[in-house]
Amino acid sequence: MAVYTQVDQAAADRFARGFGIGPVTACDAILEGVENSNYRLTTASAPHILTLFEKRVDPDDLPFFLGLLEHLSARGVPCPVPLKNRAGKTVARLAGRPAAVLSFLPGKAVTRPDVRHCAAVGKMLAVLHDEAADYPASRPNALSPTGWRTWLDRSGDAADALKPGLTAFMRAELEALARQWPTDLPRGVIHGDLFPDNVFFDGDRLSGVIDFYFAANDILAFDLAVCINAWCFDDHDHLRIDRSAALLAGYSEVRPLQREEIHALPLLCRGAAMRFFVTRLYDWSHTPGSAQVTPKDPMEYYRKLLQHKAVEAGAHTMDPYT
Amino acid sequence: MAVYTQVDQAAADRFARGFGIGPVTACDAILEGVENSNYRLTTASAPHILTLFEKRVDPDDLPFFLGLLEHLSARGVPCPVPLKNRAGKTVARLAGRPAAVLSFLPGKAVTRPDVRHCAAVGKMLAVLHDEAADYPASRPNALSPTGWRTWLDRSGDAADALKPGLTAFMRAELEALARQWPTDLPRGVIHGDLFPDNVFFDGDRLSGVIDFYFAANDILAFDLAVCINAWCFDDHDHLRIDRSAALLAGYSEVRPLQREEIHALPLLCRGAAMRFFVTRLYDWSHTPGSAQVTPKDPMEYYRKLLQHKAVEAGAHTMDPYT
Repeated sequence: MAVYTQVDQAAADRFARGFGIGPVTACDAILEGVENSNYRLTTASAPHILTLFEKRVDPDDLPFFLGLLEHLSARGVPCPVPLKNRAGKTVARLAGRPAAVLSFLPGKAVTRPDVRHCAAVGKMLAVLHDEAADYPASRPNALSPTGWRTWLDRSGDAADALKPGLTAFMRAELEALARQWPTDLPRGVIHGDLFPDNVFFDGDRLSGVIDFYFAANDILAFDLAVCINAWCFDDHDHLRIDRSAALLAGYSEVRPLQREEIHALPLLCRGAAMRFFVTRLYDWSHTPGSAQVTPKDPMEYYRKLLQHKAVEAGAHTMDPYT
Repeated sequence: MAVYTQVDQAAADRFARGFGIGPVTACDAILEGVENSNYRLTTASAPHILTLFEKRVDPDDLPFFLGLLEHLSARGVPCPVPLKNRAGKTVARLAGRPAAVLSFLPGKAVTRPDVRHCAAVGKMLAVLHDEAADYPASRPNALSPTGWRTWLDRSGDAADALKPGLTAFMRAELEALARQWPTDLPRGVIHGDLFPDNVFFDGDRLSGVIDFYFAANDILAFDLAVCINAWCFDDHDHLRIDRSAALLAGYSEVRPLQREEIHALPLLCRGAAMRFFVTRLYDWSHTPGSAQVTPKDPMEYYRKLLQHKAVEAGAHTMDPYT
């Protein structure tokens, strides 16, 4: 979330009334995140979230995303529920953008996750995978190996400003990943971006999951790899055995992993690191100074990729056993 | 296993007959391992193992070790069964040493474990913990923090020959571990030495667990930490997320880990690395050239300790979350 499109209280109030809520007594910009513009709408009853979908979201994908939220919330998953307007639509135009009004979720994101949070997130990810299994719509993942290549190309040689030679290194790395990428692992709807800022806790209890705008059909264990990278490294980019153990134990409690999925984890984690490196690199090299958003550091994901790659390189001499 | 005490076929045959087997048509030294002297006894029926207990094993502990093997094998755990002689004893003297005759287990140790082996070992470790829970005897672990200190002291400043300053570093590290060592985690009988050379596989199937001569009552998750260090690092001393995931998933399938146990894993892994560093350092600095045994490299465990310590140091700034 961020604010790219300005909306004042009067405009928010008019828009919200179309969705059966209001009057809106306050419309406050939410600065966290990097994708869309979000406002917290205060009304006499419950608060709501107003989201204006910015340019990285394809309007044609909105029915998939918002339908998924309806599907999951009907199954008891604590995710935002999109309201419908008088025309029965979850999306309408506001300030030149597609926009939606969503229920507000209680709780707070944790910036320093511990094993309790990791266990809860792992479990919730498996619940998402299970409950979305019969969601009838589908959407190919734009951020799979082919998509990573597109984003990396769009950044030109910007990576060289971060570290000399990094552009060539990441291009070679991407091609190696694309060649080895698994084709036979269980697939389904993934969240694709389940970072700590997209999960809310009320004390120990996981109270909300937000930001489904990277959801797509892909390898389920790839979603787990995204979470390992996002939740299980410490400030010094060391993988923590306690957090990864908790995350995987929580996940397996709901959906036991197949041996092939576990076997693929180092490769999937390396790919997940690439996926966030390429979009962070693009944002870092393209974010205008006027936006109320701080680009995230691409190098964090370069370092995570190196760790997973080191482990994988070790594997080459380890595979045959006697 | 190794050979410190020589036994010829005639002596082995006389001894074995006391245990109701024989004639022994071959008595072959087994060179793997570093603790006791072991021979493979060939007879017309099944092969057996002859073990002579060497100086690191306290003869007073033998009833605990051999009774545990009887207890576990009666529960279906694939471990060696000690035979009884005509006096009903599992131990008798041979070549000046306490000695036992044990059933031979099929299968081979793996030197390059993959996720299948790690999953099977994790599961077997939990089975051991569960099945040994009602074993009536007990034995304090001589290789807990106090014992580590004794072994480190016995090596004097030998570590400095491996790396200047290492003696002082490991002493300080040992005291830090002793101060923080958990006191409230679930305890029970641990194997204490479940390395790849002590586990046999017949294809994918785990066919045997041997070498229970470090078994003791201690923190159950410490046994898991020993296994993480022994099974889940690659040749370059990188922790592999796939192997640790498989090991922990296998374990949790039988005995789910408590949150406190998962939380303690980095510290327990660091302690498990210290435990093997101190005994390897002692062996490295004291093994006579005449023994048919190659001392294992203490520095492997120094490197593993550093990795776990790095993660823990990161934790200091991570513990409170907002």
